[in-house]
Amino acid sequence: MVLVLLTVLRFSIEKTDTRARLGRLVLPHGTVCTPCFMPVGTQGSVKTLTPAEVVESGAEIIVCNTYHLYLRPGYKRVQAAGGLAKFIGWSRPILTDSGGFQVYSLAALTRVTDEGAEFQSHVDGSRHLFTPELVVEIQEALGSDIAMCLDECPPYSVSRPVAEAAVARTSLWAERCSRARQPDTNLFGIVQGATYADLRETSAKSLVALDLPGYAIGGLCLGEASDVTYDMVGRVVPLLPVDRPRYLMGAGYPEDIIAAVRLGIDMFDCVLPTRNGRTGTAFTSAGRVAIRNSRYADDPAMLDLMCDCYTCRGFTRAYLRHLFVVGEALGPKLLTLHNVRFYQRLMQNIRAAVERGAFDRWSSEFLDRYRPGAEPAGNESDR
Amino acid sequence: MVLVLLTVLRFSIEKTDTRARLGRLVLPHGTVCTPCFMPVGTQGSVKTLTPAEVVESGAEIIVCNTYHLYLRPGYKRVQAAGGLAKFIGWSRPILTDSGGFQVYSLAALTRVTDEGAEFQSHVDGSRHLFTPELVVEIQEALGSDIAMCLDECPPYSVSRPVAEAAVARTSLWAERCSRARQPDTNLFGIVQGATYADLRETSAKSLVALDLPGYAIGGLCLGEASDVTYDMVGRVVPLLPVDRPRYLMGAGYPEDIIAAVRLGIDMFDCVLPTRNGRTGTAFTSAGRVAIRNSRYADDPAMLDLMCDCYTCRGFTRAYLRHLFVVGEALGPKLLTLHNVRFYQRLMQNIRAAVERGAFDRWSSEFLDRYRPGAEPAGNESDR
Repeated sequence: MVLVLLTVLRFSIEKTDTRARLGRLVLPHGTVCTPCFMPVGTQGSVKTLTPAEVVESGAEIIVCNTYHLYLRPGYKRVQAAGGLAKFIGWSRPILTDSGGFQVYSLAALTRVTDEGAEFQSHVDGSRHLFTPELVVEIQEALGSDIAMCLDECPPYSVSRPVAEAAVARTSLWAERCSRARQPDTNLFGIVQGATYADLRETSAKSLVALDLPGYAIGGLCLGEASDVTYDMVGRVVPLLPVDRPRYLMGAGYPEDIIAAVRLGIDMFDCVLPTRNGRTGTAFTSAGRVAIRNSRYADDPAMLDLMCDCYTCRGFTRAYLRHLFVVGEALGPKLLTLHNVRFYQRLMQNIRAAVERGAFDRWSSEFLDRYRPGAEPAGNESDR
Repeated sequence: MVLVLLTVLRFSIEKTDTRARLGRLVLPHGTVCTPCFMPVGTQGSVKTLTPAEVVESGAEIIVCNTYHLYLRPGYKRVQAAGGLAKFIGWSRPILTDSGGFQVYSLAALTRVTDEGAEFQSHVDGSRHLFTPELVVEIQEALGSDIAMCLDECPPYSVSRPVAEAAVARTSLWAERCSRARQPDTNLFGIVQGATYADLRETSAKSLVALDLPGYAIGGLCLGEASDVTYDMVGRVVPLLPVDRPRYLMGAGYPEDIIAAVRLGIDMFDCVLPTRNGRTGTAFTSAGRVAIRNSRYADDPAMLDLMCDCYTCRGFTRAYLRHLFVVGEALGPKLLTLHNVRFYQRLMQNIRAAVERGAFDRWSSEFLDRYRPGAEPAGNESDR
């Protein structure tokens, strides 16, 4: 299938249920039903899964990362290979994160000025400068269906002056990104402001003035209390144009996604299903299952009786635990496969509930069954 | 599919081409065409692959390991779960190696007497005694389609007296294994004798006297020169009953398999396709490819144009290299998938060549194209 990347996104709201929205997002590589969850394929691979398995999960769009792909294999190499989708064997839409978050969290950060973010590679220590213009150029070279503005993303707990400066710089950079982009590049702005409600509002308003194809809320889901997250989202959403997709970056747990859909969010991404799958925690309709637990050593049950994934069709908890205990790669793979499917079923159920005007009832029934369990044991990162 | 494990194997030779044989091996869990290659699933998983992917490769039988499964998860646990095939989600035949090789190579070996091999677990240092009777009991509890005798497997370079003692003990143990087995257990004897031709012959004759359902040649492919391997195989095979399957343990490279088929071997297993896949070396129709090599950084070609596997249908060498360079689990998985399929296609081609009486011509054509390349970089073990 050859698709020419010359279409700006079309977004239509099919149905609303209070503030929850059922939408259709038409992108150059295909159509995405929203609210959607985008599995994370940071370095051009949703960890442990083949592209065919990601398609099988029901995912219609994935997230890749500008910072990582810029360092390895290099964006010009990917461009020469025909673009990111072709390079990684994924024929559906891709959203690329701008790399702002990674510059702050992974790289040895040397200096941020209004010009851009100068950093040292976490791979080899080489020095690089990300400007708003370069970040747009990279994402256009990758052929991203949705590109993100370069933003300054400080920790949620920063002081007001730091948050204020980050908001100002994020707005300045968004304007430069917007000027630099090709007309057909689907560039999303990123609202910052840490946990200061008025700064969030300032940030949202200045980005909306740029009339971008979509808007994200960044700098949340980084460790702050959930009610703070929801409070910030609840204040920002009403300021965003109703006809543009809204993306809450980095959320999250099923309960967070449900809360954010209720506030009017359309798009989500998070490393939880993949990272927790790799480290031995499964999401199930009854809550989280830490599969290494010795209670599962003789458990003949499947992970989740409500699930239709390959893992839940053929493997007992006892076998899955065995794979983790002996260190077989198939364990992380089978749990990731399940978790990614779990998140897609979650979104399918959310969409079906909004469709029939029953989102509140559905979500309280879901949350009645779903008990958040033990935290994952590992601390591996895939951002 | 429910199959009752009450059938002793049936083996029929459909065709011979000089000494190469085309056979059918009927086992409790299914039929295996020979010459066959059995992927290694030591701990109950062919590393990185799902059972569905192993089936897709064309493999009709896999090898699991008594020593590893005895230690973890424990054979009584597997038995209670309905047997090994059910536990690991594999519906086809399984051959279990007796664990003799692992006791010598992995465990901290304390003492071998005629009674058995007393060893310390490589997992937790606990002490265990493998007797011929226990090893049969374990394999019967696992529900193996083919069980192997406990053998004493010294390095190929041992002195004659050590090899002589190993042959004597292996024969003694084989007799005890044979007495201990249920009548329907497909027990194979293992010919030892290091590189001493007369000891190999002594070993073969004493095992053949036990009238076992099949025979293996062990203690080879451990580092000795190929012509020594072939010499030993060539001396042992004529002593084995023509109507029983012959299994050369641990072979090997494609060129070794072809040479052994020519000598009349029917069954093979080796960690090479899986281990090399994980560490970045692919087997292709043109020889071995070390995918991390920088020459592949921009290579738009698939791994092997002659291959029909999932990897070769969708991923360039450039992308596969990228996955290895950045450490994505998908890299080892895609290369393993390809290698396992490569070995199954190799065996299919061997069988087709024997079928049409053209084994010699086919094998010289194959070896003309196939240039053994660089050795794999890693040294990970899965035995």
